[in-house]
Amino acid sequence: MSQLYSSSLLENAVNEFAKLPGIGRKTALRLVLHLLKQREDEVELFGKTFIRLRKEIIYCKKCHNISDTEICQICANPSRDESTICVVENIKDVMSVENTQQYRGLYHVLGGIISPMDGVGPNDLEIESLVKRVQEEGIKEVILALSTTMEGDTTNFYIFRKLSPFELKITTIARGIAIGDELEYADEVTLGRSIVNRVEFTNSFK
Amino acid sequence: MSQLYSSSLLENAVNEFAKLPGIGRKTALRLVLHLLKQREDEVELFGKTFIRLRKEIIYCKKCHNISDTEICQICANPSRDESTICVVENIKDVMSVENTQQYRGLYHVLGGIISPMDGVGPNDLEIESLVKRVQEEGIKEVILALSTTMEGDTTNFYIFRKLSPFELKITTIARGIAIGDELEYADEVTLGRSIVNRVEFTNSFK
Repeated sequence: MSQLYSSSLLENAVNEFAKLPGIGRKTALRLVLHLLKQREDEVELFGKTFIRLRKEIIYCKKCHNISDTEICQICANPSRDESTICVVENIKDVMSVENTQQYRGLYHVLGGIISPMDGVGPNDLEIESLVKRVQEEGIKEVILALSTTMEGDTTNFYIFRKLSPFELKITTIARGIAIGDELEYADEVTLGRSIVNRVEFTNSFK
Repeated sequence: MSQLYSSSLLENAVNEFAKLPGIGRKTALRLVLHLLKQREDEVELFGKTFIRLRKEIIYCKKCHNISDTEICQICANPSRDESTICVVENIKDVMSVENTQQYRGLYHVLGGIISPMDGVGPNDLEIESLVKRVQEEGIKEVILALSTTMEGDTTNFYIFRKLSPFELKITTIARGIAIGDELEYADEVTLGRSIVNRVEFTNSFK
C-alpha cells in the first residue's frame, strides 16, 4: 500500500523517522504530526541536538566510552579502581553496569563483538587497545562482561588468548539463575552452569 | 532508576527523543546510538528535515490539509468533485480516505474534535471556515467522517446544527460490521446499527 502524502516536506520527514530502527511508517507519521504541533524553537532544538551530538561527540581515548572530554568522567575519576577493567560490547552496557552501583573499576568498550556473519572481525574492535592498556597501565584484573551468545563466547575466547601472556586475573561475569526466576523455567545449560559454579551460601548474601 | 550518562550531548539527545509520544528512555537511547553510527551528513539531513518541515509547512487555505502550496494538491485538482466535502479530524484521516481510492471529492480538516475534557471547544476547530465554504462554494453534500466516539458524535451533531440552515445533503460514513469480521464477535450496538442501515444486496457488491 503506497501512502499518498499531500506535502513533500511531510513525506521527507516521515522518511527520516522511518529510517530509525523499530520505527515503521505509521509511527513515523504520528511522530511527525506531533512535531508539527510543537513550537518552532522546540523543533529547532530537537533537530539541532542530534546534529550537534553527531558532530561534537568524543570517544574517550582510554576506554572508548562516549564522552564530552578526551578522557571520560569514569576514567578521570581518581576514586575508581584503576587496576580493574570491565570489558563490554557497547556504551549501553557501560550504563547497565554503572546502574548496578556494584562496580568501581574502569571500562573498555569494544564497539561490538566478533561476528563473522555480520563481517565483524577482531580488527574492527578495540581489542589491540585493550592489550596495550593491560601492558601499560598495570592492570590486575580484566572482567569479561559480554553477552552469553556464540559471538560473545568467541570474543571472550579471543581476548582471553590475547591476554594470556600477561600476568593478570581474567574473569567473566557469573552466569546462573536470574534473581526472582523459578528453577522450573530455567534452561538446562544455565541451570547446569549454575550448579558447577555454585558459591558458598554465606558468600552469596554478601 | 536514574540513568547515568557519560556525556551531556548524549543525555540531551536521549531527552529529545524521549519527548516524543510512545518513546521511552530505553528506546530513545537505542535511537541515539543508531544515529551515532550514521555518517555526519546523514544525521545533518535527519535533523534539518524536521526543522525545515516545521518552518516551511503550509496548511491549505481551503481545506486546512498539510500542503507545500497555498492551495493543496487535492483542492487544486480540477478532476475532483468540488461539490462534495468530506469532514475529517486530522490529516492522517485524509490519507486514510485517499488510500481507499473510493472518494473523489474535497476535504475539510477540523484539526481535532470537540472534547471538553481536553479543553477543545468548537472555536478551536475549523468549523466556521467549513460553514463559510458551504455558503460560498456551492457545496451539495457534506460527509461527516469522524470517529465513532462520544467526542466524534458531539462534533457531528454540532456541525449538523451549524449546517442545517443550508440546503445540502449531510451524510456520515456507514457504521457496520467490518469486512472480514465474524458476526459472532461484533458488538451489539454495531450489529444493531448495521441491521437498521441495511443496504440492497446487489448494491453492496458494486
